[in-house]
Amino acid sequence: MSSAPPVNRQVRLKARPNGIPQAEHFEIVEATVPEIADGEVLVRNHYLSVEPAMRGWVSAVANYSKPVGIGEVMRAFAAGSVVKSRHPDYAEGDAVTGLLGWQEFAVTDGSAITRKIKEIDLPLSLSLGVLGLNGITAYFGVLDVGQPRPGDTVVVSTAAGAVGSAVGQIAKLAGCRTVGLAGGPVKTGICKQEFSFDAAIDYKVGNVAAALAADCPRGVDVYFDNTSGAISDAVLAQLAIGARVVICGTASVASWDPPPQGPRVERHLLVKRARMCGFLAFDFQHRYEEAIARLAEWVREGRLRYREDIADGIEHCPGAIAQLYRGENLGKRLIRLHR
Amino acid sequence: MSSAPPVNRQVRLKARPNGIPQAEHFEIVEATVPEIADGEVLVRNHYLSVEPAMRGWVSAVANYSKPVGIGEVMRAFAAGSVVKSRHPDYAEGDAVTGLLGWQEFAVTDGSAITRKIKEIDLPLSLSLGVLGLNGITAYFGVLDVGQPRPGDTVVVSTAAGAVGSAVGQIAKLAGCRTVGLAGGPVKTGICKQEFSFDAAIDYKVGNVAAALAADCPRGVDVYFDNTSGAISDAVLAQLAIGARVVICGTASVASWDPPPQGPRVERHLLVKRARMCGFLAFDFQHRYEEAIARLAEWVREGRLRYREDIADGIEHCPGAIAQLYRGENLGKRLIRLHR
Repeated sequence: MSSAPPVNRQVRLKARPNGIPQAEHFEIVEATVPEIADGEVLVRNHYLSVEPAMRGWVSAVANYSKPVGIGEVMRAFAAGSVVKSRHPDYAEGDAVTGLLGWQEFAVTDGSAITRKIKEIDLPLSLSLGVLGLNGITAYFGVLDVGQPRPGDTVVVSTAAGAVGSAVGQIAKLAGCRTVGLAGGPVKTGICKQEFSFDAAIDYKVGNVAAALAADCPRGVDVYFDNTSGAISDAVLAQLAIGARVVICGTASVASWDPPPQGPRVERHLLVKRARMCGFLAFDFQHRYEEAIARLAEWVREGRLRYREDIADGIEHCPGAIAQLYRGENLGKRLIRLHR
Repeated sequence: MSSAPPVNRQVRLKARPNGIPQAEHFEIVEATVPEIADGEVLVRNHYLSVEPAMRGWVSAVANYSKPVGIGEVMRAFAAGSVVKSRHPDYAEGDAVTGLLGWQEFAVTDGSAITRKIKEIDLPLSLSLGVLGLNGITAYFGVLDVGQPRPGDTVVVSTAAGAVGSAVGQIAKLAGCRTVGLAGGPVKTGICKQEFSFDAAIDYKVGNVAAALAADCPRGVDVYFDNTSGAISDAVLAQLAIGARVVICGTASVASWDPPPQGPRVERHLLVKRARMCGFLAFDFQHRYEEAIARLAEWVREGRLRYREDIADGIEHCPGAIAQLYRGENLGKRLIRLHR
């Protein structure tokens, strides 16, 4: 294509971090955009995603996916448009999303593309957030794993974040009372005003256990856990009988090699006949279309709100994961490559 | 009744232990056998049960049942026969079991009786073990909570004990490969020879993690946890994808006030999409008859074996819980009051 520039800026993994990846673990490299072969497609990325899960993707510790190799383009979800296609399923102009990497252009045989975007009435960027893995994670995590019943008290950590904010709103749609945990008054304010949480607790001030007890007088029926650590310890001490704890992420733990110590959970689980379930959205891949259709409907109806925090330029990628873990973003963190 | 002696020896709680109850926390008192009123029944206890759960029953820490009060008869399961009845549902000579207490005689309006024993072809003592709460706990814990599939690897802690030995055999009947954890060569020998475990690991010697890895080459699909503590930490590190951890007891932890520290479990559960479920047999009370009928059938067919460790005389009660936690018994610990 005449519109394809010759240079493809890529963010590659330079060194393997132990713990949270920092800017110095990556480098920006200028590669050329290769010609595509038969059966391949060239995608120009418009938005690159930043996820807490990226820490796991570059970790050497046994994990649920193969670690990104040193010198490889950083694994990342991205959304863009097809600029050249020699693949029967894709045509120039198609909007697509998938594991297209932290780079300006991606060449793929189609295997990296998760999905052709059908919701073209909605912003493309949503396919990386509320209509992407964040929304999908919230949908299956709270509804299938958490199994909320109307009247249940649902507590969510990182409640102002991309997953947590969707969890709270979906639980609310399911008839639950929702309590969000977030860091600082700005985020707790957003939880209540934008994401309809019935209560929001700032875990950085005061006595979290006392605040939880006040906001969850009948105990916690569902805890959607994005953090692990001290916040979770406080919630686990207040489970209701039959509670479900959905382990979605462990953002508060800097390194699992070796696993950090914490108060043992067995007695809480036994006495309360509660369960803790680890959960990966990937295991629900066969039902993604169901989730996206439902989420998109809720977005169109104004019943599911979202926030985006967009930085312009690929140079923001290397430091973006660390920034996420410092909790500096307000809403889904995205890197926009061009308007 | 002319056969009822005037004295009822009772074991009462004298002081509240912090941790495992010792002999000095109880006293043996001679009470009189009261006359029964209309609607009441007098039971002569033949066997008194000793359970790990008794630690919880006398603990001041919030628990799943009201703590036994100081000066009260120790809560205990017992099996005996009705010696006097002014209750329409019970006749002299009926064999019964229930929460009849650590005492020679119990007077009840029927509410303490769990069940009239139908399996009169089998020894009465079984109603406190393999056909009682131990067998019932194993049945629902492994089949309903653990949900084993044929070919699964099922690991059991306290595998030579009253619950663990039944868990292993039921898992085996369900087509699983069974690996028992027990303390010392006598118990591991019993696991393999009497209870058909495919492998048994002595957690008191050698490297438990290495032994588990060797005996569970495809990881652990179901872990039936009676212990918590270091043994469980080793098992949790080797869960298979989709594993189920059944939390039935926490025998290795001396006190939960405050909860002891241990390696955090969230990452194992997340990466392996595993679940940990606390479980109390009481929640399956509406299905006890189903379990007992099935267990009795397996006992009659010789497919479910059991061991009893019987001490004669109520004076063995006070020290019996501590003895259980020291692992000194081989088989279900019972106190026989008379032959």
